[in-house]
Amino acid sequence: AAEEAAVRAQADAVRRLKQDKADPDEIAKEVTKLLEMKAQLGADEGKHKFVLKTPKGTRDFGPKEMAIRERAFKAIISCFKRHGAEVIDTPVFELKETLTGKYGEDSKLIYDLKDQGGELLSLRYDLTVPFARYLAMNKITNIKRYHIAKVYRRDNPAMTRGRYREFYQCDFDIAGQFDPMIPDAECLKIVHEILSDLQLGDFVIKVNDRRILDGMFAVCGVPDSKFRTICSSVDKLDKMPWEEVRSEMVGEKGLSPEAADHIGEYVQLHGGLDLIERLLQDPKLSQNKLAREGLGDMKLLFEYLTLFGITGKISFDLSLARGLDYYTGVIFEAVLLQQDNEHGEEPVGVGSVAGGGRYDGLVGMFDPKGRKVPCVGVSIGIERIFSILEQRLEASEEKVRTTETQVLVASAQKKLLEERLKLISELWDAGIKAEMLYKKNPKLLNQLQYCEDTGIPLVAIVGEQELKDGVVKLRIVATREEVNVRRESLVEEIRIRTSQC
Amino acid sequence: AAEEAAVRAQADAVRRLKQDKADPDEIAKEVTKLLEMKAQLGADEGKHKFVLKTPKGTRDFGPKEMAIRERAFKAIISCFKRHGAEVIDTPVFELKETLTGKYGEDSKLIYDLKDQGGELLSLRYDLTVPFARYLAMNKITNIKRYHIAKVYRRDNPAMTRGRYREFYQCDFDIAGQFDPMIPDAECLKIVHEILSDLQLGDFVIKVNDRRILDGMFAVCGVPDSKFRTICSSVDKLDKMPWEEVRSEMVGEKGLSPEAADHIGEYVQLHGGLDLIERLLQDPKLSQNKLAREGLGDMKLLFEYLTLFGITGKISFDLSLARGLDYYTGVIFEAVLLQQDNEHGEEPVGVGSVAGGGRYDGLVGMFDPKGRKVPCVGVSIGIERIFSILEQRLEASEEKVRTTETQVLVASAQKKLLEERLKLISELWDAGIKAEMLYKKNPKLLNQLQYCEDTGIPLVAIVGEQELKDGVVKLRIVATREEVNVRRESLVEEIRIRTSQC
Repeated sequence: AAEEAAVRAQADAVRRLKQDKADPDEIAKEVTKLLEMKAQLGADEGKHKFVLKTPKGTRDFGPKEMAIRERAFKAIISCFKRHGAEVIDTPVFELKETLTGKYGEDSKLIYDLKDQGGELLSLRYDLTVPFARYLAMNKITNIKRYHIAKVYRRDNPAMTRGRYREFYQCDFDIAGQFDPMIPDAECLKIVHEILSDLQLGDFVIKVNDRRILDGMFAVCGVPDSKFRTICSSVDKLDKMPWEEVRSEMVGEKGLSPEAADHIGEYVQLHGGLDLIERLLQDPKLSQNKLAREGLGDMKLLFEYLTLFGITGKISFDLSLARGLDYYTGVIFEAVLLQQDNEHGEEPVGVGSVAGGGRYDGLVGMFDPKGRKVPCVGVSIGIERIFSILEQRLEASEEKVRTTETQVLVASAQKKLLEERLKLISELWDAGIKAEMLYKKNPKLLNQLQYCEDTGIPLVAIVGEQELKDGVVKLRIVATREEVNVRRESLVEEIRIRTSQC
Repeated sequence: AAEEAAVRAQADAVRRLKQDKADPDEIAKEVTKLLEMKAQLGADEGKHKFVLKTPKGTRDFGPKEMAIRERAFKAIISCFKRHGAEVIDTPVFELKETLTGKYGEDSKLIYDLKDQGGELLSLRYDLTVPFARYLAMNKITNIKRYHIAKVYRRDNPAMTRGRYREFYQCDFDIAGQFDPMIPDAECLKIVHEILSDLQLGDFVIKVNDRRILDGMFAVCGVPDSKFRTICSSVDKLDKMPWEEVRSEMVGEKGLSPEAADHIGEYVQLHGGLDLIERLLQDPKLSQNKLAREGLGDMKLLFEYLTLFGITGKISFDLSLARGLDYYTGVIFEAVLLQQDNEHGEEPVGVGSVAGGGRYDGLVGMFDPKGRKVPCVGVSIGIERIFSILEQRLEASEEKVRTTETQVLVASAQKKLLEERLKLISELWDAGIKAEMLYKKNPKLLNQLQYCEDTGIPLVAIVGEQELKDGVVKLRIVATREEVNVRRESLVEEIRIRTSQC
């Protein structure tokens, strides 16, 4: 009722504004307010038709999904630690201005918080900008860190393909002034290790350099002012055919058809060291300073990747652009290749699972004196990996345990709740993972069934006779074997029997 | 400029409203809008003086803080797993209506997201309401799960005491229809195990029951309609003296002085089984059905806690109320007791580190048919625990390693970058945690210093002579001892020498 009154008051304000012949903009503004209030009121009225769901583009992770998620995280974290990374964490939201001007055309996808008084805040869009803010704020010029956390994008994602509005990123970055391409090569090695370890099937890591792209744009006749927007168009080549990208460049973005066609020739090139050598000889490209620098570093990168023994999965690909504004050097993206390709065709990419690159200017954007900290990093797109692992598990019918419980404390007769509580307390205090049914007098059959259902390997059964004898009957669920174990040896016996689990 | 114009327009609107002799409330509303716009404008103008900070009430966790955080999480997770809990995760935001009407007077602290089209969303305020939503949505009637994640409250927290606007909760809950007080007792056992394991010093777990409180309010003459709000006042007793709480009850909330004084007598009571027995005989309280039920269950709870051997740290405390609306039965809160109490006074609570209780109606609020799923759970207030562990670590001067690197791959001469890359790649592929400096020709002294600084225990040194001999020189940082190890035995040698780390 109070809300309805507020709407009515607002409506009165609009009427009064109209009578005053106020500025139409102002009336429009009041009308908007009115409509918002009404919408809200409508929502409240509909409370009895409460919709039971998670917000659009998000999902819950139940125990089974979490078991899969934790397996994947374990592989990724152990790789990051193998490479000597520290770990940090930052808040889920940042000051809105921290994110402003970092994401180019994607900025519209940022989630803002409602202004409830105080600072204007936005949910983080990636982990890279918060990392740069963290470095500048703490004057850190040298760090190798990983950060695993959720980021937020108001996208219209295809959830079936593992794309969400809330999703995890697993980032590894190296910040500091070092000799060229050594940290960059390590980032690619990390992607290679993780994708191999997770056994997701065949993959290719596409590599390019923003300087090569910019040099290419220059020699193709793209005006300086159009570099970033044309770069965004090129970035769409993994989802659109060249013809559509070309018409976006020429139609929407006003590029000359000749320049577009010229770009079209370059972006179909991909290869290895041979292509780098060829482009270093390219009469036009080799005249451009940026392109020469980029190609020189690309050559060095391939030398290091050869020492790492991973060039077989690396493709220097001139169509790779990456959407984000902040990259300044090497960029890369790992793509899974379609499996079960029966027709012997060239493998087709089914989706990006990792990406990254060098961003030498981002920290300087936050530093009061503009001091730069060169950075290179990689982000593992874990959600798509979860989707693949989930599908695979479902197909395999493998049973996933969602707890680690070693033993169920059970009783064969009634009135033994107190004895079960005493025993389970002893086991917990000794570090044994133990459960019991929360019933005063559970049936033995139900207790055994619970073990079958949840995969608990042992049952510790207390009964009148066992209590008198100072023993516990230990049942091995898989074999149905039962042994009497002296109470004081029970912990040790459980440890031995579950040490293989 | 556009924003200034908007402020001016709004100011005009206020003036016009005044001329119209509009309702003072309405003018006040417009003035508020005006002030908000001005504040915003001020913030925008200051953009060139970019403020490098995290949002109010939030913090970053650097590598050292993360090392401490991970230790605490490890203790907590291993306890939850010891009790057979599965793990789930839910999105950081929920539909706004999911949170509506669950938190009583605290609802004003919920962070809303900006309406950018689509659903109205709010950041989760705790993990309990999302858990209840998850159960209802998936029709789960029986689960024991933990959930560790950040929650959000627009509070004015004392960050020095480990209170933030973004903070972790570590929740363990048992949902299902079971025999009374068995899961409730397990929740208290868990709090006891975790606080003992983390060695935070002496603590007490206060226990009460909403039914005892409601019964007490009834016999003290509190009208039914005032139960919840008077309960909120009682909840402030841990921060305010009784006199202030009393004057809030009588002044702000319109309770009769007699009723308040009557409550005042009860809320100073605390004790154990003896107090429960005494209250069961209390001539007034024993007449109240709710109070009798609550006291009966409290007695049962104390019997189970006696079997668990933890009653020494449990205090049945009639002043414990807990702020949240959704509790229906047992409630509890763990408080650390001040250490270094030189004057032999009674120990003073220095802050709540865990809390929880039974909420049998919450899931039913989400179920379309109102089907209830009884739940009881505990939430560990990990931020305050972090603060204590951090302070303790700082005082102890213990050096915390922030990486797990086993070996640094180094070179004694120039021009050996390629050899270092080859060796480190071999080590990574064998699962060894290895680092190298990202320099072409680093000085040996700098490489050794890096090990000292970061605690890396071993250095694998490649040099011309070693390469010829097919060996690597392994240096033990702590002892400065150096041994030549055949290249093919290096991985094994590193494993043996770091197996104690």
